[in-house]
Amino acid sequence: MSDVNGFRDVLDRSAALARDRADPLRDRVDLFLPTGPDVVAYLDGNSLGRPAAAVADAWAGLARDWAGRLIRGWDEGWMELPGTVGDELAASVLGAAPGQTVVADSTTVNLYKCLRAALNLRPGRRRVVVDRDNFPTNRYVAQSLARDLGLELVWLAADPDGGVRPEDVAGVLDDDTAVVTLSHVAYRSGFLADMEAITDLAHRAGALVLWDLCHSAGVLPVELDRCEVDFAAGCTYKFLGAGPGAPAFLYVHRRHHDRLDQPIWGWLGGADPFQMGPDHRPAPGIRSMLSGTPPIAGLLAVREGVRVVADAGVPAIRAKSVALGEWTVALADAWLAPLGVEVASPRDPARRGGHVSLRHPDARRLCAELAAAGVLPDFRTPDVVRVGLAPLTTSFTAVWDALAVLRDLLSGARPRAAADPTAADEAPPMAPNG
Amino acid sequence: MSDVNGFRDVLDRSAALARDRADPLRDRVDLFLPTGPDVVAYLDGNSLGRPAAAVADAWAGLARDWAGRLIRGWDEGWMELPGTVGDELAASVLGAAPGQTVVADSTTVNLYKCLRAALNLRPGRRRVVVDRDNFPTNRYVAQSLARDLGLELVWLAADPDGGVRPEDVAGVLDDDTAVVTLSHVAYRSGFLADMEAITDLAHRAGALVLWDLCHSAGVLPVELDRCEVDFAAGCTYKFLGAGPGAPAFLYVHRRHHDRLDQPIWGWLGGADPFQMGPDHRPAPGIRSMLSGTPPIAGLLAVREGVRVVADAGVPAIRAKSVALGEWTVALADAWLAPLGVEVASPRDPARRGGHVSLRHPDARRLCAELAAAGVLPDFRTPDVVRVGLAPLTTSFTAVWDALAVLRDLLSGARPRAAADPTAADEAPPMAPNG
Repeated sequence: MSDVNGFRDVLDRSAALARDRADPLRDRVDLFLPTGPDVVAYLDGNSLGRPAAAVADAWAGLARDWAGRLIRGWDEGWMELPGTVGDELAASVLGAAPGQTVVADSTTVNLYKCLRAALNLRPGRRRVVVDRDNFPTNRYVAQSLARDLGLELVWLAADPDGGVRPEDVAGVLDDDTAVVTLSHVAYRSGFLADMEAITDLAHRAGALVLWDLCHSAGVLPVELDRCEVDFAAGCTYKFLGAGPGAPAFLYVHRRHHDRLDQPIWGWLGGADPFQMGPDHRPAPGIRSMLSGTPPIAGLLAVREGVRVVADAGVPAIRAKSVALGEWTVALADAWLAPLGVEVASPRDPARRGGHVSLRHPDARRLCAELAAAGVLPDFRTPDVVRVGLAPLTTSFTAVWDALAVLRDLLSGARPRAAADPTAADEAPPMAPNG
Repeated sequence: MSDVNGFRDVLDRSAALARDRADPLRDRVDLFLPTGPDVVAYLDGNSLGRPAAAVADAWAGLARDWAGRLIRGWDEGWMELPGTVGDELAASVLGAAPGQTVVADSTTVNLYKCLRAALNLRPGRRRVVVDRDNFPTNRYVAQSLARDLGLELVWLAADPDGGVRPEDVAGVLDDDTAVVTLSHVAYRSGFLADMEAITDLAHRAGALVLWDLCHSAGVLPVELDRCEVDFAAGCTYKFLGAGPGAPAFLYVHRRHHDRLDQPIWGWLGGADPFQMGPDHRPAPGIRSMLSGTPPIAGLLAVREGVRVVADAGVPAIRAKSVALGEWTVALADAWLAPLGVEVASPRDPARRGGHVSLRHPDARRLCAELAAAGVLPDFRTPDVVRVGLAPLTTSFTAVWDALAVLRDLLSGARPRAAADPTAADEAPPMAPNG
């Protein structure tokens, strides 16, 4: 009777508790600092992951080391952190061999460097394929470089599931295509693109790919080397838990290292920074993608966040992520669909990333009302309540409780805020970078 | 008899202790975390400033706020930090009215954005004036943009004091000069450029200026507004004490805000980031210089570092900085000149920044030997021992003790390390970004 989408007793809260008891990752939440007591359910870990206690410890340790070792810290590991933390991330999260990944700068800056470097590898070609539904920064970086270099942007529209399929890409590739730049998981719909097939199609057309991994790194398997991805970049403060605005990563496949040429020439991308020579001579390999001085507080946070993910293991995280997604869809179908809510993410878990988007015309106001009740999803313009599912910290019971609040708001069982559009515009939490 | 350069009893250690007792900033050092017990004298605070305890407290507070407030932190101040911390820095350190300064990205990235934005304001002009002795990143950024945009770089050589004088600049300006980009204080010699005169000369030629403030911000008065500087950028981990690789700042005078156009279009430089619209529409004012998500751990460290400087006040800091510089020169003249050491910074304190460079052919090895003895200056290729004087943490006695060790090494009173060039190449502390 209460079976929904194959879940038994989904509408019974004890079923949620039972699933949590059976969850092999259930104890991982103890690695994290507690949320505020006002938080009923945090469903925005795909925008800003919760802090592991180890991150706070790393900052305390940095203050001690900085005070004690002073300038010597640079020679005792700090200077190498962009590459060492990059390699740790590559091994446990990105499916990449060492020497191809660095952690530095913001996602935006990394996308700028990578796209420009990719274009420099295809000098005769003038077209860049971009996803119209991609995150703004990705589109704006492409627009800026298109303006500067006189390129043509080829805009793909999302399919009905909110994503870009291989056939969509195949339809626009030609021998003037220099680069295809897409998100692995779409920030709004949660659509998981077929990285391998699309990369292969681009290569067959002689083009390169630049993948944005902001919404996939740390929550599902990424296999950059096996897929022969050319360039990738992404942030570390979502499923990797490195904190607000922590430095981003970038990856360049080693087959391109001999001819790497990015535009922001800085001393730390040089072959011998302390020679301080007259002309920029790029460092060999991935280090040439660096520019300025490494941000150590951020890098140490990335290291700890990656370690927590690595210890749990991406396969176990993905298994729970899929289960949480199915659980969310089942509850939405049972409780929310009759109240006018539509699942706006792919229903096939194999095509869905780590979040489930729910569409409702009142989404903005609903997010504010949910926040007032201690339930923290994210609003995404114009009409999406985005339910982020962070497998290391999100329980089945939290999802159950959160969607019960949403149900009660929509059904009138819980009083709703007055429809003051100004207040509603102000209130919902606005999460950065996807 | 022991008077040197007007200092009485400079060679008597009790004179150093007396100067420290009379120092109005003497207690400020208590705001900082203690150095390691092996440190006799830290003379590299102009490369990596020591941590104030408040910075460590800010990181602990951030971990708590992040855990408790979660995504809501972005709406509760984090998102505005690039501008609010920028304004705090502007008011207390840069001599700039609000709304013209942001803290974000690295110095290198900021120089890239600023130089490109400056060039966009002078589209018909093809020449950029650069200092041949400027810090590598500054030169490399100019080289990269020159290559991309087909510009000509006009290289200035340092004068005998290691700096660029107004007459040097006047000699190369013409009606094809787009931008003059220089360091306010030269990283090697410590030469303090005449910002007002050079800016005025550039303006008379119809050119713009971009000043690098890495070695002046926080240690001497900077008056960006009064000097009508167009663009400026600099780091925060030297005299501002924000920690290794902390985010840098940039300033653009408000008269240029209407036509600001920097190349790294990112969502946080847009007019309405959360609208996530199809095209990049730059934010009004200085915010259009931003690109990616603000690095909060770094920004909070900058805020605390700036507060410590602001509380002491730049005039008092400069007064002690000059006194420490004169003290260093006096000791060098008395003890070190007879042993082959030359003062490689301007002797006129009005033309000198916050450090004193000492030249000796064995500088590299001497730095390693000093470090082994707990004295930490910086080596700068090819032959400079750079004595950094951080007025909030450096005492007259520390300078006395440090130069006494250097004297004893040179005189043979203290045994020197075997001249193993490999070991010496490895050993000296290598401090980043100037």
